[in-house]
Amino acid sequence: MILIQKEMQSVLFELFLKYGFNETRAKILADTHTENTLMGVNSHGINRVPAFINLVKKGIVKINEEAEQVGAFGSIERWDGRFGSGVINARKCADRAIELAKDYGVGLVALRNTNHWMRGGAYGWQAADAGCIAILFTNTQPNMPPWGGRDSRIGNNPFIVAIPRAEGHVVLDMAISQFSFGQIQEYALKKEKLPFAGGWDTNNELSDDPVELRKKQRGLPIGYWKGSALSMILDMLATLLSAGNSTYKIGQKEEETGVSQIYMCIDPRKFSDPNISEKLLNEIIDYTHDVPPMKSGDKVYYPGERALMNRERNLANGMTVDDQVWGEVMGLVD
Amino acid sequence: MILIQKEMQSVLFELFLKYGFNETRAKILADTHTENTLMGVNSHGINRVPAFINLVKKGIVKINEEAEQVGAFGSIERWDGRFGSGVINARKCADRAIELAKDYGVGLVALRNTNHWMRGGAYGWQAADAGCIAILFTNTQPNMPPWGGRDSRIGNNPFIVAIPRAEGHVVLDMAISQFSFGQIQEYALKKEKLPFAGGWDTNNELSDDPVELRKKQRGLPIGYWKGSALSMILDMLATLLSAGNSTYKIGQKEEETGVSQIYMCIDPRKFSDPNISEKLLNEIIDYTHDVPPMKSGDKVYYPGERALMNRERNLANGMTVDDQVWGEVMGLVD
Repeated sequence: MILIQKEMQSVLFELFLKYGFNETRAKILADTHTENTLMGVNSHGINRVPAFINLVKKGIVKINEEAEQVGAFGSIERWDGRFGSGVINARKCADRAIELAKDYGVGLVALRNTNHWMRGGAYGWQAADAGCIAILFTNTQPNMPPWGGRDSRIGNNPFIVAIPRAEGHVVLDMAISQFSFGQIQEYALKKEKLPFAGGWDTNNELSDDPVELRKKQRGLPIGYWKGSALSMILDMLATLLSAGNSTYKIGQKEEETGVSQIYMCIDPRKFSDPNISEKLLNEIIDYTHDVPPMKSGDKVYYPGERALMNRERNLANGMTVDDQVWGEVMGLVD
Repeated sequence: MILIQKEMQSVLFELFLKYGFNETRAKILADTHTENTLMGVNSHGINRVPAFINLVKKGIVKINEEAEQVGAFGSIERWDGRFGSGVINARKCADRAIELAKDYGVGLVALRNTNHWMRGGAYGWQAADAGCIAILFTNTQPNMPPWGGRDSRIGNNPFIVAIPRAEGHVVLDMAISQFSFGQIQEYALKKEKLPFAGGWDTNNELSDDPVELRKKQRGLPIGYWKGSALSMILDMLATLLSAGNSTYKIGQKEEETGVSQIYMCIDPRKFSDPNISEKLLNEIIDYTHDVPPMKSGDKVYYPGERALMNRERNLANGMTVDDQVWGEVMGLVD
């Protein structure tokens, strides 16, 4: 079905109020899940709402808690998320990192004991809207084997880099896995092979067969051994700076909770003329946009370009939402 | 042939003096090229010396110049490398980022107009030896196509993350290309295929044939479209913060020079007990080390583990250096 922005926001606001969030928090949650859907990331927008409510019901996401500062030195702070909503904690910590960047040029907030932040890119856009560059990442439960290993012991640790730009921010929002399990499921439903290997099958071989890949949850890191190392070191940074849980510790829990995250912001206007910055960015974008395509009709995009196109299209025409998902959401409201 | 550390240092020191570097600079260069070789990275250690001298002879690397500060706000600074040696500029800017981290918790130096830094990991070890976490990257000349494009317009932009650790620092040092052209050449010499695709052949198809790959210099980004986006955004960050050259501008020059780099350091001891940090890191390392291997005899390493093993072995037994390379170096000294 097709939904417009205000309709989704208003239904979700009622839903989050019903499950005990106060008005401020319900609004942040409703706006963020709607925004993620507008950006085309339904998997971490509207589709994720029922699972989130389930975690609230189980008491894993604590509705009355939010992040508080537990340590500070100059431009670095450590915060504890107290197992509140990952979205609300992320909004708060991104805001704090922005403030630190405005004061010091660069600011870093390390957050522990938080929950899934849904779409990490949302906080990249938040920083860029405030004129800041952002580098953000989270650890996760184990869902990929370290290179050479047979069991999943590293996370797909989403990594976000955002750069403010007048014509549309540049925002890289990527997990360290080549494909998400959500994408692998979509290939399975379409009865198609993946375009490249996406993980290991039951014979411990790399495979592009989504049915085989779903039997074992062993995703492939981007760049094979390189992504394996990148995942490990991002987990170390998030764990160390927050003194929080590592992927190892998160894997010992029944549900993914208590993850560790980094919010780093840089204020480029402290010594850059925004016009020069814009020119430098656009030169890079034009140079890559204008490349002759490998296959006729192919187009090269800058990071975040398609998300922005989705947003504009969805604002104009409404968002396409799976009927069953919307049915579940409406069932929770009633 | 086999060389010990002191022998290589002393020959290189004489060489760099001969080509006009003062004693301080010649020592930094000799020590860094030797250290890179000890770590097992001959390609950016001893093997690179003749090419470096060639750039000095051409006046592309300016022997009497070094980086100077051109802008500052709080914990961020902008430096200009004045086309001096990339190694000397990198040592200086890494030191400055370490100082800023000690003062503010986190510090960032953006460097423009510098030359190739050889092995980026060297500056990760430098920061970790000073007790700091480091995140470092550089842009390069264009050597990979952006995803969907036919010509090389993005760089393999090496990305380094270092974390201090008593038993041996954790240091990720990776280029964004799946394989370097040096590695592809090695497969060609051994008449072997690459284990995975490494770039595009003359038919615009992904290929694991090193002979085909060498015809066109079109490397494959790690994670396909993901590494393409990561490369682009790292170039943007380095260019924007330094107000320096982008890969686009570097590609317009005959030789790779005037690159832009980022040195970010974090002092984790500002609010972390080093013993707790060490425990958290070792838990992550043990958890990944202890994974059952995919293939019998396989072993999982943490980032930087093999480099440290190389160093220990090379310190004990001497470094294996290609006879022809050493002959060239000795020819330059005489």
